[in-house]
Amino acid sequence: MNKAKVKVGIIGATGYAGVELVRILLTHPNVELTALGSVSFEGKALSDVYPSLQGLCDIACTTTEEVIAKSDVVFACVAHGMSQDFAARCVVKGVAFIDLGADFRLADEADYERWYGGEFTEKALHAKAVYALPELFREQIKVNRVIANPGCYPTGIALGLFPALKAGLIEKSGIVIDAKSGVTGAGRSPSDTTHFPACNEAFSPYKIASHRHTPEIEQTLSAAAGEKITVVFVPHLLPVNRGILSTIYTKLRSGVTYKQVREQYESFYKDEKFVRIKSDGKIANLRDVKYSNYCDISLHFDERTGTLIVVSAIDNMVKGAAGQAVQNMNIIFDLPEDAGLCFIPPAF
Amino acid sequence: MNKAKVKVGIIGATGYAGVELVRILLTHPNVELTALGSVSFEGKALSDVYPSLQGLCDIACTTTEEVIAKSDVVFACVAHGMSQDFAARCVVKGVAFIDLGADFRLADEADYERWYGGEFTEKALHAKAVYALPELFREQIKVNRVIANPGCYPTGIALGLFPALKAGLIEKSGIVIDAKSGVTGAGRSPSDTTHFPACNEAFSPYKIASHRHTPEIEQTLSAAAGEKITVVFVPHLLPVNRGILSTIYTKLRSGVTYKQVREQYESFYKDEKFVRIKSDGKIANLRDVKYSNYCDISLHFDERTGTLIVVSAIDNMVKGAAGQAVQNMNIIFDLPEDAGLCFIPPAF
Amino acid sequence: MNKAKVKVGIIGATGYAGVELVRILLTHPNVELTALGSVSFEGKALSDVYPSLQGLCDIACTTTEEVIAKSDVVFACVAHGMSQDFAARCVVKGVAFIDLGADFRLADEADYERWYGGEFTEKALHAKAVYALPELFREQIKVNRVIANPGCYPTGIALGLFPALKAGLIEKSGIVIDAKSGVTGAGRSPSDTTHFPACNEAFSPYKIASHRHTPEIEQTLSAAAGEKITVVFVPHLLPVNRGILSTIYTKLRSGVTYKQVREQYESFYKDEKFVRIKSDGKIANLRDVKYSNYCDISLHFDERTGTLIVVSAIDNMVKGAAGQAVQNMNIIFDLPEDAGLCFIPPAF
Amino acid sequence: MNKAKVKVGIIGATGYAGVELVRILLTHPNVELTALGSVSFEGKALSDVYPSLQGLCDIACTTTEEVIAKSDVVFACVAHGMSQDFAARCVVKGVAFIDLGADFRLADEADYERWYGGEFTEKALHAKAVYALPELFREQIKVNRVIANPGCYPTGIALGLFPALKAGLIEKSGIVIDAKSGVTGAGRSPSDTTHFPACNEAFSPYKIASHRHTPEIEQTLSAAAGEKITVVFVPHLLPVNRGILSTIYTKLRSGVTYKQVREQYESFYKDEKFVRIKSDGKIANLRDVKYSNYCDISLHFDERTGTLIVVSAIDNMVKGAAGQAVQNMNIIFDLPEDAGLCFIPPAF
Repeated sequence: MNKAKVKVGIIGATGYAGVELVRILLTHPNVELTALGSVSFEGKALSDVYPSLQGLCDIACTTTEEVIAKSDVVFACVAHGMSQDFAARCVVKGVAFIDLGADFRLADEADYERWYGGEFTEKALHAKAVYALPELFREQIKVNRVIANPGCYPTGIALGLFPALKAGLIEKSGIVIDAKSGVTGAGRSPSDTTHFPACNEAFSPYKIASHRHTPEIEQTLSAAAGEKITVVFVPHLLPVNRGILSTIYTKLRSGVTYKQVREQYESFYKDEKFVRIKSDGKIANLRDVKYSNYCDISLHFDERTGTLIVVSAIDNMVKGAAGQAVQNMNIIFDLPEDAGLCFIPPAF
Repeated sequence: MNKAKVKVGIIGATGYAGVELVRILLTHPNVELTALGSVSFEGKALSDVYPSLQGLCDIACTTTEEVIAKSDVVFACVAHGMSQDFAARCVVKGVAFIDLGADFRLADEADYERWYGGEFTEKALHAKAVYALPELFREQIKVNRVIANPGCYPTGIALGLFPALKAGLIEKSGIVIDAKSGVTGAGRSPSDTTHFPACNEAFSPYKIASHRHTPEIEQTLSAAAGEKITVVFVPHLLPVNRGILSTIYTKLRSGVTYKQVREQYESFYKDEKFVRIKSDGKIANLRDVKYSNYCDISLHFDERTGTLIVVSAIDNMVKGAAGQAVQNMNIIFDLPEDAGLCFIPPAF
Repeated sequence: MNKAKVKVGIIGATGYAGVELVRILLTHPNVELTALGSVSFEGKALSDVYPSLQGLCDIACTTTEEVIAKSDVVFACVAHGMSQDFAARCVVKGVAFIDLGADFRLADEADYERWYGGEFTEKALHAKAVYALPELFREQIKVNRVIANPGCYPTGIALGLFPALKAGLIEKSGIVIDAKSGVTGAGRSPSDTTHFPACNEAFSPYKIASHRHTPEIEQTLSAAAGEKITVVFVPHLLPVNRGILSTIYTKLRSGVTYKQVREQYESFYKDEKFVRIKSDGKIANLRDVKYSNYCDISLHFDERTGTLIVVSAIDNMVKGAAGQAVQNMNIIFDLPEDAGLCFIPPAF
Repeated sequence: MNKAKVKVGIIGATGYAGVELVRILLTHPNVELTALGSVSFEGKALSDVYPSLQGLCDIACTTTEEVIAKSDVVFACVAHGMSQDFAARCVVKGVAFIDLGADFRLADEADYERWYGGEFTEKALHAKAVYALPELFREQIKVNRVIANPGCYPTGIALGLFPALKAGLIEKSGIVIDAKSGVTGAGRSPSDTTHFPACNEAFSPYKIASHRHTPEIEQTLSAAAGEKITVVFVPHLLPVNRGILSTIYTKLRSGVTYKQVREQYESFYKDEKFVRIKSDGKIANLRDVKYSNYCDISLHFDERTGTLIVVSAIDNMVKGAAGQAVQNMNIIFDLPEDAGLCFIPPAF
């Protein structure tokens, strides 16, 4: 029996997350790409903006209205503050909504106000929306139609810390997260900081202890720990195109052994295709996950200080954005969770 | 009706071409990867050498004998001089042989001796082997079982010049080819020239007018022109991982217009999925073909000097090596020619 | 006896050429940096724009008027079309003027109109201005006060071809110049093409046979040849910060030997500190000249086709812009020509 | 009065630290480079190994004996374990010895045994040797002739933490150091990990909590704190040529304000030319110190967690190796401390 293909539309298709969605969806066996929305490039073909797509996606960009009208599911890749209205319009028409932005990620409106400076305009939708990190919250995602796709940094960090916190193996305070992201994380708009001569052969942290992903990270970790977790989070800009590597420093709780930690991680993720726990002595590397939906995690114990060091690596545009969004779509449309996502990470 | 899967083995699986073949073949719908051969890493899993493959290709490397015994087709990724014997052993057992090295590329033994310093040890096989650039020699490939997969530089250059020479639109002498290759072209063995601080923020030609791909390039161009073609060929080492971009300078023949050139290229490649002719004013770029099997070609005319400039871009590891080898396998096993090769080039 | 220090001002100090001038002039033993002009950053310290200069150049940017008033010599780093007026104002006050832009480079107003779209507004100044490539036109520079500092591409190319053309060793037609420039050549303003993810791991030609440096290149080569020279010139954008490498293809004239060519180059440049001819078999490389005022030139002969291949490498921001401008200043102020320019190129 | 020039020799001149010393010393006003020692390249010119030096340093490499015989001061750039003997031979002849390796850095032989696996073969020399970080230990350096030049990571980290620990502003336990180094830190020998396609577009920690610089870091921090300090230290390999950026996490002691911290740093370094404290809101960046002897330090306070975050950036080959070694030479020969070291960091 042939299932009908899922009709997929994208709002904000010409941004980096949008065009990465297109790359993935074009070879997805169960979907049909029906409409691409763009305000800046309306009427232009996506392949005019991204010549890599010549002959592969030459349909012209259209309006949000048309995207919603033609789709069973809409992916939104827009600046925060814009998705709530789009979501409402989708829900009215029975269209599933997957938001790659921040509008539905935070459960607490006060957090949203503090970090993003806006308010929840669609409170009923917020109550229904699910924070959709499949490996952690799969059951809630299945029954939902308003999907908050996690941020890039929070994805790698939550996957890296959740098992330890959930099992009570580490101290709940004093967590330090030193994260490094490739330049695509800054999006497609040129700026002084993403100008090639400014970031090539350069390296620096930014938004030190003040990045908007902080409350999102803490929300997930708090859910794991069963109490409010506060972290130090420092992102850095890495002169590579893709990837986020997070080096996470935590203290083992008294009496806990490193062996217990390893067993918990291996057990926690044993059925998860997209999480790979490195064996002892191996170290997660951006290189090994790029262009794929994998999250590689390595575990390290510093006996001298009792510190558990967790290293997690993802492709920020795949597991950290478009790939995870497709994974969520697969879940809510009851497709194989890895459909369209079986990219083998290239060795180089 | 289900066709049985083609059993595929690789000799030299741990080199860059080998692991790229693995990346492609792992998601190919019609093949089964049955054996990986490696002298240096016998007994080790390929994922020990390339951690990107963890969980995806953990089988241990084995001997050449076992690879041949278990396969319907063998890909050989070894240094020149080694393939002739392997080919003979395959042919005896009815195993198809696809050589990613140089042993069977040159028809003229004198050329082989001059540029590679060896001789044809299996003359009967050389007589049967086909130079397998599918877009140019598809019919000969179909009926063959000893396949000489073209070199990386020759692939992009031949695709870029063949239509113009075939149709007699350009002068046959005075062709200048300025080519630039990413560092994976040098293979996986570390060396002074591929050491990161030596080639990052650096750029230089190498093997000026003396690269071994020269006779191979001339052989194909001569076939197109119907007479002996001699070219100036200068390769450069480019500080990127992947890709070859060739800028090719030729003179339009008297009376020929640029419009005729464009029409010839568009017509010549109109049914070719993997060759994309850029529209006027657009320029081929490495970025737009990387991680894919496409060859992008742009055409430019300098009225001031009567020069036709052809720019061709490929991923040296895909269309320039492993991808084209799989395309050839598809042809000889009567599979859809693009099976396993529908990679969408990522925008970044 | 102490010579008084030369008072130096810069108009357009916050652009890339401007800040590179500052880097050089700050350690120049015979100058005093008296004023930095900037429209966009007036009132701001240069170190606010370029934090590398913190504590080294914290004076605030000021107006063009003030720059001219305080200086013995003014360097102008502004878009073409703006320098003519500045030059006139300097000349009136007896201030030497060194233009790093294009306004005074072309002797023929028709060329300027065709390639830049403007006209010579200060015809008397144009008659006096000198095209200031020191190794070629030193004597004219000495007696001049309006200096047209050569463009980046033309510098490397002219140094690479002048000796051969001057001595009549090569054919005057059919010259092909394939040049590759680092991204700083595009200046400090962010754009789609200089956005890190767009040009990292990418490579492409641009402005094929239509770059504005073409007439400037031809003007110098014509001066060498004694007749009008027309070239094919194709620049490429290279994913490195600095440097231009040009690969130049020419035909040896009948009866000329490669040995004669080498002798001519070695003789022509034997007293030139900043030109280094590589010995046979060695190849010029961007890496070896970066952050220095050297131009490295290597010579190669392709016997198969009678082609002389000249490779020249410079740092586009030093010998191709700010360094050469300082070299010119040294000449007109009768300072040692290498004063302030003895940078040893770092090995990495 | 003219001081005679200091005669300088280098053992291990062809390694990365050696050639960087040459780059610096060639323009140092008070030294004469008298001999370069190399085992691998004896008899070859340094410019054969590093073409950047063509015409600038063409003297042939010689033996250790000759280097010592010809020099007032010898810099040793050799693997650990080899310097002790060289030092002894220098001391006998009254030649000053500056070791860029690890042999004399650790005061405690037990530490040396544990982390480097050797023993102190010249115990008397160890007793006299000084750990020569000029900004911290200048007075001891002045009177010494056996100089242990600090390691690259320890230099940036010690400068970043010393003032806070010395003044008792931060907790002495729980210090986390997340450091990132360019690839030149791995030296000039090619290896799998420094092969361009393996480290370009890649990023990963290495030697997690087990790097040999750990005891050296702790030794200096303990000296500052007046008690034994233990740190978590995780280095990462960064795909750039040069530079080390360390992000350091510490807890402010109860009652201490961020304002006190800033005042302490500004006061502590107020007379130090080579340390630049960034003003509030500015962030240290590798880009701003490369090719220079500066250490940029920025200070950040996370109120939510009471964490003081110190970011320090150096060029690993200059302040982290050759530049600091020359700074030490200047001190012991009573030259201006910045002689030969006034490199302006380029903006790009």
